[in-house]
Amino acid sequence: MTHAEELPALGIDIGGTKVAGGIVAPDGTVLATARRATPGTSVADTEDAIVAVVEELAERHDGELVGVGVGAAGWFDRTGDTVLFSPHLAWRNSTLRKDLIARLQRPMWVGNDADAAAWAEYRYGAARGADLALMITLGTGIGGGIVVDGRLQRGAHGVAGEWGHMRVVPDGRLCACGNRGCWEQYASGRALGQTAREVARTSPAAAARLLDRVDGDPDRLAGEDVARAAADGDALALELVTEVGLWLGQGIADLAAVLDPEVVVIGGGVSVLGELVLGPARRRLDLALPGRGFRPGPRVVVAELGAQAGLVGAADLVRKAVSEDER
Amino acid sequence: MTHAEELPALGIDIGGTKVAGGIVAPDGTVLATARRATPGTSVADTEDAIVAVVEELAERHDGELVGVGVGAAGWFDRTGDTVLFSPHLAWRNSTLRKDLIARLQRPMWVGNDADAAAWAEYRYGAARGADLALMITLGTGIGGGIVVDGRLQRGAHGVAGEWGHMRVVPDGRLCACGNRGCWEQYASGRALGQTAREVARTSPAAAARLLDRVDGDPDRLAGEDVARAAADGDALALELVTEVGLWLGQGIADLAAVLDPEVVVIGGGVSVLGELVLGPARRRLDLALPGRGFRPGPRVVVAELGAQAGLVGAADLVRKAVSEDER
Repeated sequence: MTHAEELPALGIDIGGTKVAGGIVAPDGTVLATARRATPGTSVADTEDAIVAVVEELAERHDGELVGVGVGAAGWFDRTGDTVLFSPHLAWRNSTLRKDLIARLQRPMWVGNDADAAAWAEYRYGAARGADLALMITLGTGIGGGIVVDGRLQRGAHGVAGEWGHMRVVPDGRLCACGNRGCWEQYASGRALGQTAREVARTSPAAAARLLDRVDGDPDRLAGEDVARAAADGDALALELVTEVGLWLGQGIADLAAVLDPEVVVIGGGVSVLGELVLGPARRRLDLALPGRGFRPGPRVVVAELGAQAGLVGAADLVRKAVSEDER
Repeated sequence: MTHAEELPALGIDIGGTKVAGGIVAPDGTVLATARRATPGTSVADTEDAIVAVVEELAERHDGELVGVGVGAAGWFDRTGDTVLFSPHLAWRNSTLRKDLIARLQRPMWVGNDADAAAWAEYRYGAARGADLALMITLGTGIGGGIVVDGRLQRGAHGVAGEWGHMRVVPDGRLCACGNRGCWEQYASGRALGQTAREVARTSPAAAARLLDRVDGDPDRLAGEDVARAAADGDALALELVTEVGLWLGQGIADLAAVLDPEVVVIGGGVSVLGELVLGPARRRLDLALPGRGFRPGPRVVVAELGAQAGLVGAADLVRKAVSEDER
């Protein structure tokens, strides 16, 4: 075992509205956490928030830290040096990693948040020990990560696992990426909200109970409202959640045709709905898996590490990088 | 270098109607070939044809052969021991590899023909040296293979790369796999034939020149007829080939979202149309690549090894397996 493998690491998860950090032990335990709000629209503010969280945690921690891992909702190049693109943050070809190394003077791993979450689930969670694991984060959109034979597979240019942008419906719903019919427009929190608003506008009577939650204004219906209503047993909300689950299962069938994974881990905000989403997803997968009856399909399971997966994975990835340098 | 790496190997490619074999030098050169017709409907007949081709080639060859590699249009389990399923051959859970080892008494590699072709293009052809290469074989249907970091990636159960069965159109064309809307129903030789028949039935006048090739019988129009007509400059045929190319490019964009490959090699019968198919495919990819403008896409190139890719790859894969055992 290398020295690095025995040390805690700092993990950071950057979302659209906040920077969350934690000190993570080699066994995946989160020893301490800190967070800052960030507007998301300014690169400088986000970097300041990261530095503040790192400094706060480092001050509170007694002893050596192996480095800082940062997962963010962006597309990174293969080295992690450059943020190529972020749909929800201000970064465009930003040199986040270099800037942070200059300010923090610590070893760093910087990469995609869903990649970090996939790694955490592989190391400590629902995909532990799997030869080929996929992580699907169902939040506002869909993120993804691939772990093959104990390594994160980030693609030739660093942007593998962006299957939220597979086209599943020709001429379908418009996506923030500029295309139409992307998977995340049908299976995500945003999809849940969009379908709910469409139903509420067209059939306000059918959606009366949903509309009660937003003072009768269909435009204010969001995925979270539908998710809460479904958890409360609202019939229409349950139907909409089922529909998202069916789209999820269809996409998993498509990914199984391409990658033939052993396990598919579902994380992200929508995954808290558990079997309400996963049940329909598995039913659809059973019907749609190419070659079904002649081949095994993937297990579809809910993530075990919840909202901390991103920071736990990022921390372990910097520990792994430093450890490999030591060897 | 191991002893095995310096020896020629025997490669076999099993299609729907023939068994083709060759002796392949370590540098990929095909030193000798042989073939047998096979009805494809009988497992025993196919095995007999394989044995006959192997014996003929071994007799003609002076010197040691490292083993026999067999690529077939079927879905294999991860070990290659079992054919899980073959849409065009009679195998169902057949123990092809064990049977052949018993009869041939030679080291063997047995696997999917598109996997073998992918390996050949990676070792000797259009994907030489690529970190992440995908092979798409456009024949009657679509086959596929993935090479990552110098290794064939066959998935958790041996059936990765079956992207011909990604669903690209909800409620779309019926596929032999039992699903609807599979990619290979829109981008393949069969798709070319099907669209041509639909046009010829609906608008016989527009399809007059195509119909001349099949004595005026739209039901007899096959993909090959359309391909030949396109090569001759027939306007409708060119339009249909363009459509197949556009569907090809869309599917490559979807695969780029999932896997982010460095290079995509297009092989199989339809690929002889070259730029008539690849031109539209690249145009569509440029428009549909998720994150275009912020990230590189894959190079899309035509296969270099042609119809021999399968047997060349299978031969090298048995050489590789024996060589790894020697180490």
